[in-house]
Amino acid sequence: MGKKIVFCAGAPDPDLAYLKTISYDMLIGVDAGAKRLVDAGYVLDWAIGDFDSVEKPDSKESIVLPCEKDDTDLQYALMHVLSQENDDDIEEIIILGSLSGGRIDHLICNLWFVYQPRFQKWLTKYHLIEKGNTMRFYEPGEYTLTHDKTKKYLSFIGMTPLKALSLINAKYPLNKANYEYPVSLISNEFLTDTMTFSFEEGLMCVMQTADK
Amino acid sequence: MGKKIVFCAGAPDPDLAYLKTISYDMLIGVDAGAKRLVDAGYVLDWAIGDFDSVEKPDSKESIVLPCEKDDTDLQYALMHVLSQENDDDIEEIIILGSLSGGRIDHLICNLWFVYQPRFQKWLTKYHLIEKGNTMRFYEPGEYTLTHDKTKKYLSFIGMTPLKALSLINAKYPLNKANYEYPVSLISNEFLTDTMTFSFEEGLMCVMQTADK
Repeated sequence: MGKKIVFCAGAPDPDLAYLKTISYDMLIGVDAGAKRLVDAGYVLDWAIGDFDSVEKPDSKESIVLPCEKDDTDLQYALMHVLSQENDDDIEEIIILGSLSGGRIDHLICNLWFVYQPRFQKWLTKYHLIEKGNTMRFYEPGEYTLTHDKTKKYLSFIGMTPLKALSLINAKYPLNKANYEYPVSLISNEFLTDTMTFSFEEGLMCVMQTADK
Repeated sequence: MGKKIVFCAGAPDPDLAYLKTISYDMLIGVDAGAKRLVDAGYVLDWAIGDFDSVEKPDSKESIVLPCEKDDTDLQYALMHVLSQENDDDIEEIIILGSLSGGRIDHLICNLWFVYQPRFQKWLTKYHLIEKGNTMRFYEPGEYTLTHDKTKKYLSFIGMTPLKALSLINAKYPLNKANYEYPVSLISNEFLTDTMTFSFEEGLMCVMQTADK
């Protein structure tokens, strides 16, 4: 089993309860996310951010970034920490606190980064988690998903055009459907504990979500 | 001047105060958004939705959709109402209540619809508005933007690869930059009341946003 590395970015109300359900190898607080983790009693391996709106909390190691920079604090933290690891040793990159909050441009930015060549090599390892929302990314292939019983809905989001998308054992099945444009197929559901999907070309984001 | 048509979808806390700042020709409430508008004293031209979680409010005209359908309530409402208009008569399609709330798959769906061929013909007319966030879409060309003084940040989000993106009179200018992948360039700022941007290929989303 490889390393599970957890980042907590600065969006309000990250799902810290999730941390109690898993074991992980590194915990990185990013800007306001660092303070939220420390306030909740966690010990940080790294605190990284510009800390312009919150004080930098205690951590084993830290980096204070300039306020004006090309990358977001989260992008910098991902590159800095992941680049020090052997890619084969990384099993999962869990990102909390990246998708909720007030600024929708920030949310989009925290989703779009997977397109960047420098981040894309870890594409299948990202696991973005907010309350009621989990998100993973897939390259062409065939996959079996397990139902997170706390979330009713299963959504398939084409980040690009898609070729031959099949959904098996889902409430709304598909058989080798092609989409010439990025498509958002939401509110599907598992029929049983697991379902299978496959596609031949494109980049896919899969979410399990719950109504509030 | 063409028609301004306003849709209010079902995401929580739509920015109804915005309606007091503009004049518009039609007001359409979509599912929970219909009830929110009527509760706030507005008279609806249309109420459209499956109304599975809220009661259908009074309106001049209404459509009750089945709960299980391929389109979201908002997509159905857009197609139904806009298809009855002459495209040249439509000046602006204002959409409130489509981007906030708990389910991120719904948010992405309410952004992704612009990619669909049937919706893309109105691409430059959509104006998505939430508290602290406004979003418009652009085809290749040159544009001048005016600063909404209530919002500090200006973000350029490539929905596709982009060719020759220039940002003039912005805090972080660009000169004919090319991006091979969808890129999210956020937290730029106006230097004065207006700025100019241009690009030669791709599809662009521009947001003006404010911190909460």
